[in-house]
Amino acid sequence: MKLYIKLAETLGERIEHGYYRPGDRLPSVRALSLEHGVSLSTVQQAYRILEDSGLAEPRPKSGYFVPPRRQTPALPAVSRAPQRPVDVSQWNDVLDLIKRSAKDNVLQLGRGMPDITSPTLKPLLRSLGQISRRQDGSGLYYDSIYGTQALREQVARLALDSGCQVPASDIVITTGCHEALSVAIRSTCEPGDIVAVDSPSFHGAMQTLKGFGMKALELPTDPLNGISLEALEMALEQWPIKLIQLTPNCNNPLGYIMPEARKRALVTLAQRYDVPILEDDVYGDLAYQYPRPRTIKSFDADGRVLLCSSFSKTVAPGIRVGWIAPGRYLDRVLHMKYISTGATATQPQLALADFIANGHYEPHLRRMRSQYQYSRDQMIDWVMRYFPEGTRASRPQGSFMLWVELPEDFDTLLLNRALLPKGVQIAAGSIFSASGKYRNCLRMNYSSKPTPSIEAAVRMVGETIRELMGE
Amino acid sequence: MKLYIKLAETLGERIEHGYYRPGDRLPSVRALSLEHGVSLSTVQQAYRILEDSGLAEPRPKSGYFVPPRRQTPALPAVSRAPQRPVDVSQWNDVLDLIKRSAKDNVLQLGRGMPDITSPTLKPLLRSLGQISRRQDGSGLYYDSIYGTQALREQVARLALDSGCQVPASDIVITTGCHEALSVAIRSTCEPGDIVAVDSPSFHGAMQTLKGFGMKALELPTDPLNGISLEALEMALEQWPIKLIQLTPNCNNPLGYIMPEARKRALVTLAQRYDVPILEDDVYGDLAYQYPRPRTIKSFDADGRVLLCSSFSKTVAPGIRVGWIAPGRYLDRVLHMKYISTGATATQPQLALADFIANGHYEPHLRRMRSQYQYSRDQMIDWVMRYFPEGTRASRPQGSFMLWVELPEDFDTLLLNRALLPKGVQIAAGSIFSASGKYRNCLRMNYSSKPTPSIEAAVRMVGETIRELMGE
Repeated sequence: MKLYIKLAETLGERIEHGYYRPGDRLPSVRALSLEHGVSLSTVQQAYRILEDSGLAEPRPKSGYFVPPRRQTPALPAVSRAPQRPVDVSQWNDVLDLIKRSAKDNVLQLGRGMPDITSPTLKPLLRSLGQISRRQDGSGLYYDSIYGTQALREQVARLALDSGCQVPASDIVITTGCHEALSVAIRSTCEPGDIVAVDSPSFHGAMQTLKGFGMKALELPTDPLNGISLEALEMALEQWPIKLIQLTPNCNNPLGYIMPEARKRALVTLAQRYDVPILEDDVYGDLAYQYPRPRTIKSFDADGRVLLCSSFSKTVAPGIRVGWIAPGRYLDRVLHMKYISTGATATQPQLALADFIANGHYEPHLRRMRSQYQYSRDQMIDWVMRYFPEGTRASRPQGSFMLWVELPEDFDTLLLNRALLPKGVQIAAGSIFSASGKYRNCLRMNYSSKPTPSIEAAVRMVGETIRELMGE
Repeated sequence: MKLYIKLAETLGERIEHGYYRPGDRLPSVRALSLEHGVSLSTVQQAYRILEDSGLAEPRPKSGYFVPPRRQTPALPAVSRAPQRPVDVSQWNDVLDLIKRSAKDNVLQLGRGMPDITSPTLKPLLRSLGQISRRQDGSGLYYDSIYGTQALREQVARLALDSGCQVPASDIVITTGCHEALSVAIRSTCEPGDIVAVDSPSFHGAMQTLKGFGMKALELPTDPLNGISLEALEMALEQWPIKLIQLTPNCNNPLGYIMPEARKRALVTLAQRYDVPILEDDVYGDLAYQYPRPRTIKSFDADGRVLLCSSFSKTVAPGIRVGWIAPGRYLDRVLHMKYISTGATATQPQLALADFIANGHYEPHLRRMRSQYQYSRDQMIDWVMRYFPEGTRASRPQGSFMLWVELPEDFDTLLLNRALLPKGVQIAAGSIFSASGKYRNCLRMNYSSKPTPSIEAAVRMVGETIRELMGE
């Protein structure tokens, strides 16, 4: 283990065990360098890790401090999902969320949109521009159905950070994570088949099941640990489940990271019942912890995990570049990819490969992770302040989305209807369930840097909730 | 009708009826201006139309001439397709064609790739570059699921040229024509359903039927007039056909344009049996005739035609921008589009909208049509010269693909295997059939300007054919 990681862990433990208390000043870089016999830059690297994981915060000219402990709302309840497979509904409410473009005059607090205004994206824009100007028109040709080789190699390298050894030849570039999910589902299931899913779950994946005629079996999911393996095992006994589909890292919408031991246990269970796993890791690189959490795929010994991801959340959604490492399903996935869109657009693949190869991806991630973590705390504070008492909220460990639970008889579809004339939109909880559960929940995006106008919008959401509750 | 179009028609009839003979000099611009009492520029416009449609050719400083009559090979036979629905096969041979990228050191004579080196594309590249440099990052956001409004409006305007009045609100932008075809099929059929198709037919559409589990009923297709309406009617009587899928304009691979009367009759037939029509018009704008041929959609009175197209063949395939005008199926198409890739990439849509709105699309088309027509004649000459006697060939009326028929027992899959070590690839005929027919046929691309190295490649293909025939 590298020295600075070891040092970060030592300091992290001291903080978590209360040796340093919230608000305390942490030892200076020089003092730690002397204490541990390491270089100043090693200490600085260690502090950067602690900063990334929210355990230390720098104050200008005063050094590092333990962040003050924040008051946090109660966690949402563990979901009690229906114990039988259902057809997916809720399309009209999803359409309502996605039919708007960025230019519409609505503050889209409900959309899964990252902040794309960071200066760390400039090299990507430059690269896109340069490829456009290339005289060989390299951005205009059909690409190979597998995707651009240079990008597949970069994806294979990045996968190592999640504990995955996937050669570039086993990676297929897709048109966003949407296409990766869609081809993965069609490569493993037939219409009518049952798919076990975490719940609440990404509405795009739910709608894909609907579109292809599969049934969803929603599993009880803990807001800190992910799906219940006990419930999954019972379900595997009871139903002919053809696929397990979940988002274990920085779950959308709950924000948890499934512990490693559970990931490992899940793979064992899937092996025992011989079921493939669709792992959606689209937010995995945005975990606030460092190093980033492992994928389920990293425990996969026999190619049963189809790992799906994209650069839509980490870099920019409008470029529509995702990827899939489909294990033993490569042949079927290639066919499904071909009949879905043919090859993926060439130019953004080339630009992304440049961006990553030239070392721009990691610094960009570092910046976004720290911005999102800061915004998360701010958003939780606002929800505490402006939402009615009794409001529960998730504790996201990565990404930029907060899941909020209101009293049981509240209806967030009505809330959205009341908010739209005021120019704000949230994501209603029911679209995250195959069967329209979570009507009293909502998802809010905190990817933008906190501003007074966002605070005003959150306050308005809170006030509208109170009005609808008749307070 | 505009004066110059009327004049072009008059002159065209005189040429076709033999009043002017091949090699004859045509009347001067001045003489025609006097004869018909029109301006010089009207005559020049008329001559440009005749030039575009191959009826006149300019010679520097000598005026216009009737092109010498070329010796042409016999047409391919009318396909006699199997008269029962079949499952689609041939995926491995398709994969063989599409797994290469443009950088592979193989002359891909088999691929449906347009010429993207024309200087008339420069404004598009400039526009792509400019959007990349925009500080508002407009190319990086998720777009609306419908697509960019500016592009939808341009597509609606262009559709008028094919006789179609489709408002922008009825158009959905897709990730290439592949996605348009795929969502159209899934919006109208269920697995197991029977789809009537022209034959030979685009391998991508065939593979889409395979991927979603539909059966293909291949209809006899005339190399000049398209599918047999008589056979279609019999099939509609006999089978529960759920969709009619065809490429009536600049058919891929046969190159014919279905006559207007037959298009109209097809719509009537579809109405009578209440079946939707999937019309693939991806090559329609590349017809050598002016104005371009009408779409089947232009005769559609009750929204049963799903018109699919893209800018992949007219502008550039690597940007992956297509569109669909789905008529009464709009709602289902939107859902299928969402679960396939989500929104389409933003930047290329914005750049294309600029390109078209600023008047760059039509001149580009004009140039490409005339280049492709010239290359077609050259390619037919080479096939006549270098392929064995008895070789038949299509007479493409647009686009850039020639269909070649060899003696009945020849196998073009073996030909491809023999050609690959020599660095050339053709498209084997069998991938254009659901059931692997047309083994003695092949498709060749003539989009590039004729060069000695392409001639050498065609000669090598001819020689390899002779070798395999044991000549």
